[in-house]
Amino acid sequence: MNIELVTIGDELLLGLTVDTNAVWLARELSQMGVAIVRRATCGDDADDIASAVNDALVRTGAVITTGGLGPTADDKTKVAVAKLFDRQLEFHEPSWERIREIWRTRGRSGEVPESNKQQVMLPSGADILTNRHGTAPGMMLRDAHGRWVAMLPGVPREMRGLFNDELGPRIRALVPGAVFPILTRTVRTTGIAESTLADLLVTHTSALKGLSLAYLPGQEGVDLRLTSRGRSADESDRVLAEGAVVLCAVASDHAYGTDDDDLAAVALNGCRAAGYHIAVGESCTGGMLGQRLTAVPGSSDVFLGGVIAYDNAVKITALGVAASLIELHGAVSAEVAVAMARGACERFGAEVGVGITGVAGPGGGSAEKPVGLVHIAVQVAGEVTTRGGQLIGDRAEVRFRATQLALDLIRRALSVSRAPAS
Amino acid sequence: MNIELVTIGDELLLGLTVDTNAVWLARELSQMGVAIVRRATCGDDADDIASAVNDALVRTGAVITTGGLGPTADDKTKVAVAKLFDRQLEFHEPSWERIREIWRTRGRSGEVPESNKQQVMLPSGADILTNRHGTAPGMMLRDAHGRWVAMLPGVPREMRGLFNDELGPRIRALVPGAVFPILTRTVRTTGIAESTLADLLVTHTSALKGLSLAYLPGQEGVDLRLTSRGRSADESDRVLAEGAVVLCAVASDHAYGTDDDDLAAVALNGCRAAGYHIAVGESCTGGMLGQRLTAVPGSSDVFLGGVIAYDNAVKITALGVAASLIELHGAVSAEVAVAMARGACERFGAEVGVGITGVAGPGGGSAEKPVGLVHIAVQVAGEVTTRGGQLIGDRAEVRFRATQLALDLIRRALSVSRAPAS
Repeated sequence: MNIELVTIGDELLLGLTVDTNAVWLARELSQMGVAIVRRATCGDDADDIASAVNDALVRTGAVITTGGLGPTADDKTKVAVAKLFDRQLEFHEPSWERIREIWRTRGRSGEVPESNKQQVMLPSGADILTNRHGTAPGMMLRDAHGRWVAMLPGVPREMRGLFNDELGPRIRALVPGAVFPILTRTVRTTGIAESTLADLLVTHTSALKGLSLAYLPGQEGVDLRLTSRGRSADESDRVLAEGAVVLCAVASDHAYGTDDDDLAAVALNGCRAAGYHIAVGESCTGGMLGQRLTAVPGSSDVFLGGVIAYDNAVKITALGVAASLIELHGAVSAEVAVAMARGACERFGAEVGVGITGVAGPGGGSAEKPVGLVHIAVQVAGEVTTRGGQLIGDRAEVRFRATQLALDLIRRALSVSRAPAS
Repeated sequence: MNIELVTIGDELLLGLTVDTNAVWLARELSQMGVAIVRRATCGDDADDIASAVNDALVRTGAVITTGGLGPTADDKTKVAVAKLFDRQLEFHEPSWERIREIWRTRGRSGEVPESNKQQVMLPSGADILTNRHGTAPGMMLRDAHGRWVAMLPGVPREMRGLFNDELGPRIRALVPGAVFPILTRTVRTTGIAESTLADLLVTHTSALKGLSLAYLPGQEGVDLRLTSRGRSADESDRVLAEGAVVLCAVASDHAYGTDDDDLAAVALNGCRAAGYHIAVGESCTGGMLGQRLTAVPGSSDVFLGGVIAYDNAVKITALGVAASLIELHGAVSAEVAVAMARGACERFGAEVGVGITGVAGPGGGSAEKPVGLVHIAVQVAGEVTTRGGQLIGDRAEVRFRATQLALDLIRRALSVSRAPAS
């Protein structure tokens, strides 16, 4: 089954919002064996919406839209699609009751704003998708030829809730029993170039048994994604597992995990297995390493905490870095990174300590210590490893790459072998 | 001038990558008065690429593509577009020399991988866009009717560099002198519902002088965006500034800034103006508040650092929270948040201290202290303000909303008035 996605909103075309809904929906649908074959984005204009939805309907016959269902005048999706299906808008009492109830339970005072009434003017004959996560109901319209358009709100939390509760089950019911899911397996690598991987893999393509292979370079490293189509779920799982073993062998110690594995989670798992705890001392990353580690649910049994030592005085007082060391080598130096890692271990009683110091830019660089220079130290059970060098990218990228390098140093210091391929 | 954008890659359709290139390009182009009127996304299939590019060419005659120019077999953009324009691929010696040079300067050993050669097979008669940021050259093809397709790589850093160096100037040259830029002004609000804003604004629409108004709800709050079309840049600036004054007056103390203003930058500016310094004590946010504050370039004159007090022992030893307080009220309590804020001020000699403690989930909740419960305290020059409550969303959202609330408390405590509207 193929679906097209139309995401709606001037803010998407003007580049004021990143379209995370498209990402989320694509993942959910591919799990059901449904492929998004094309995606279109148009602005808050009823004619443009109608044209984009109609093009998709003609090509594919199954369309999901996101956005344009809010309570304000720039929300035009319903109007455009109702016209396309030749339906009138009618006041929907049950949806209005829901909105009034939400207003009360959120403890808002007074009556529901009049503008919310526009949200419950729904196309006649629509299949209403009840929204338990916000005020905008979703809906689904079908024509006599079985072609359909499902409309979801643009607020990500509401869109996801509505899909899970209402639209997902309806689409699942439309998928014939025998279809094959599109399944993927990604091997995640870090610290190796895309073209080097490609050259290493050139002699292994026959071992991938017709799986398609994509190279996805990013700040975290290069992901190698295998995709299986036209096989049963069991068969796909088997072939993908075998393919992942091939990729892991080729990428060697640069492979750190599969699929959604985050390097932070891999590092935490390594520490957990060893019975170790982590503490951090962060300068140029300003808390980002702690943030990444604690983004992993359940990190509290391994991650103790740390010091954001942005100011040099904090490095001295809270991490015990010797002032003379900073004077001699500069705050951005391997020596200070090591002292920060040691300090983190000692102050917090951790077996694993990390120190990061660098010049994130755009200011603060010098000929000797240019923007992008970062020094990282990791101490594991008394043993220290350091890594220093010039990272590429802007402030945000330099900081992210520094946290990635630090996590990779933890992984390597713990000899966490590559993730199992199945 | 209108352009369509075609972003290419299975990873975009499968939801494995967020399309940040589309956002960046849209912003750059709208500054030039160029509107992206539609965006399409298709997979790494030569026929799909050709069809999407052709549809856009027929509609608009001006197309930018991103992605599919890499060194590997899944990169098919060039082939598809060359065929559409009836061109052959030819080996491009200068681009090959560039790649060899990049390989040497990055200190990679050995010869350039053979697979990079595919990147320099370029359509005959193409206008080559030299890539100073990576190995994939971009290119632009024009037909006899003046219609054109410009192809950029998908790696964001390379795409941005190539646009700035090569494609941007070419597009600027194509825009006739007299066109009007599409200009926007956004007023950022936090802590007020979209529909409440809409009701408040209903009597003010005439004061917006024909500017279009969009409501953009998100984790940070609701952004109110005004768009001006069909006016000169000067006229737009004037009308947008007046419109923003109206919006700020209506949103009152919920308005914290305009356009790209980040609440972290607003809070930092408030502290800077008062001669204050910030230190943080973070539990459930695990460093995210520090990360957001230090994401702002030049934050080092205000932000000293802080403690990531994930483990309760760290709250006690590094922030001086009394163990008895934790025992009596629990780690997630207003009392502990206050003690963390005080501790951050005292330990780091800061005038502004923040304490955040909460249950980010998905685990760790109880009937009394459910997932999403967060307590925040901000101490400014000895005065403490607290805010506690149930935040909505998943782990990532709860954590982000907690940092947003903390920053808003700093802003309010400093009585930072809404940002000037012009």
